Amino acid sequence: MSITRAELIETIMYYFNEHIPFNKLVGIVVDEVSTEEVVLRFSMKPELVGNTFKGILHGGVTSTVLDVAGGLVAMINAIDRVFQSDPSLIQEKMSKIGTIDMRVDYLRPGYGNEFTARAKVIRHGKKIAVTRMELRNEQGEEIALGTATYLVG
Amino acid sequence: MSITRAELIETIMYYFNEHIPFNKLVGIVVDEVSTEEVVLRFSMKPELVGNTFKGILHGGVTSTVLDVAGGLVAMINAIDRVFQSDPSLIQEKMSKIGTIDMRVDYLRPGYGNEFTARAKVIRHGKKIAVTRMELRNEQGEEIALGTATYLVG
Amino acid sequence: MSITRAELIETIMYYFNEHIPFNKLVGIVVDEVSTEEVVLRFSMKPELVGNTFKGILHGGVTSTVLDVAGGLVAMINAIDRVFQSDPSLIQEKMSKIGTIDMRVDYLRPGYGNEFTARAKVIRHGKKIAVTRMELRNEQGEEIALGTATYLVG
Amino acid sequence: MSITRAELIETIMYYFNEHIPFNKLVGIVVDEVSTEEVVLRFSMKPELVGNTFKGILHGGVTSTVLDVAGGLVAMINAIDRVFQSDPSLIQEKMSKIGTIDMRVDYLRPGYGNEFTARAKVIRHGKKIAVTRMELRNEQGEEIALGTATYLVG
Repeated sequence: MSITRAELIETIMYYFNEHIPFNKLVGIVVDEVSTEEVVLRFSMKPELVGNTFKGILHGGVTSTVLDVAGGLVAMINAIDRVFQSDPSLIQEKMSKIGTIDMRVDYLRPGYGNEFTARAKVIRHGKKIAVTRMELRNEQGEEIALGTATYLVG
Repeated sequence: MSITRAELIETIMYYFNEHIPFNKLVGIVVDEVSTEEVVLRFSMKPELVGNTFKGILHGGVTSTVLDVAGGLVAMINAIDRVFQSDPSLIQEKMSKIGTIDMRVDYLRPGYGNEFTARAKVIRHGKKIAVTRMELRNEQGEEIALGTATYLVG
Repeated sequence: MSITRAELIETIMYYFNEHIPFNKLVGIVVDEVSTEEVVLRFSMKPELVGNTFKGILHGGVTSTVLDVAGGLVAMINAIDRVFQSDPSLIQEKMSKIGTIDMRVDYLRPGYGNEFTARAKVIRHGKKIAVTRMELRNEQGEEIALGTATYLVG
Repeated sequence: MSITRAELIETIMYYFNEHIPFNKLVGIVVDEVSTEEVVLRFSMKPELVGNTFKGILHGGVTSTVLDVAGGLVAMINAIDRVFQSDPSLIQEKMSKIGTIDMRVDYLRPGYGNEFTARAKVIRHGKKIAVTRMELRNEQGEEIALGTATYLVG
């Protein structure tokens, strides 16, 4: 009796959406997940404001969401690399994932009501993964870009 | 009738502590402020957890606090540079401050109950400032380091 | 009597190719230039090797070329923004350009004979520009990616 | 019959000084080496200039030297971690070292005749090391700071 890949992905999405307290506080929802790309969404709300005069998103929300998106795609990618060969390694892989470093470029003030973060893997090794992320508002405007390195094994 | 530097600093600290919603959500308290260094503190609480198995700080909290610390010391430094010569520029200076980019290095898992972030200015120009930040727990262990570039004029 | 934009670009390309000593040492050739993108090329030669066992490019060559590409597109972009309105500002713009910070991600070992670096502007302001760069070999393989912030005014 | 640690360090310093072509081109000399810190030196010469009007160091020289310093201290640190327990792993460790990513902050124009780069390890794991580097001129002025992540196992 074993878990299918679809069930595994669903379990991970559920964990990210429901069981990571700070993700819930921000309101992050995992929208799409594949080996190469992850899409997250969240809505503006009063608690996420960083500049009350302009009503824009706090830069910490931006960096939080980019890191969550990058970490999730790095994790899915690492899991998919062992899923076929040795599913027993999945749990171990998941527990080892951690952000090593991240760069965020804040391109525009964070105006908007609905935000979408996308992350893709640009380097996938046995030990480390590098991802690139972007945050856009509902107008499609790029609010921020990121690059991050994750330990994956 | 004009504001003294001490009053100005107090006003800024009050604004950061009480009027920035996401700072309040995280529980950031501005502890010390000078031209060259800023110290922030916050306490662990359930909502800030990123890994429920290990009970450690969410990486997004770390990046949020480092960015707030860096931005605040960049702001104070920029204000102090115009305070003597032309206090009328202070408001304008403050409204222009924005993070351009930031790098965070996550050195250790975020175990701890009380966290302290320190930021200092390593480059102060008329247009941009560069700061370095660190986050430590109550044992003095370095959880993360950061470097950020801010627009200040 | 004034210089046309084409003459200005040609002059800048000539300066970068012939008059910047370290560019000549590496063998950087400016290939294409527009407001939004710059393409540089250089060939492998024994002096550029960093690992004699594997015969691969030195990481310092990679970071050098990415910075030159990013700086050049930031410069052209900044010049084009003042060219129509006030050509007398060009000289001043050019003298002020400087790299504030850069991140380089080394994705693959630098195998190859002919390398191409591309840079594009992802943020263009009056004071700062942010660019993204990539280095590929003649097989089209991505050797490295970069993101850099430049002072432009 | 085995190599002592002192002989190993000397061999590595000799290799870096004499056998890495691009290090020789720049004129990098390894000056001091320990588990925690590495010091490199190089002298200004016409080929290293990036701005002929001001006669300052090319930013690519700066990033090159910072990466070499960081990579060397990461390597020595990784070797020292296996030297006692299993010297047969040294060769393997050395061949695996590679820069994953690097951030450079250019703080001042590179004026000077003699430059010193220092690198220290701020995170040392079995798989990755993170280092911080600085470049100063003979006046002790900080020209640039860097942070880099290396694969070490």
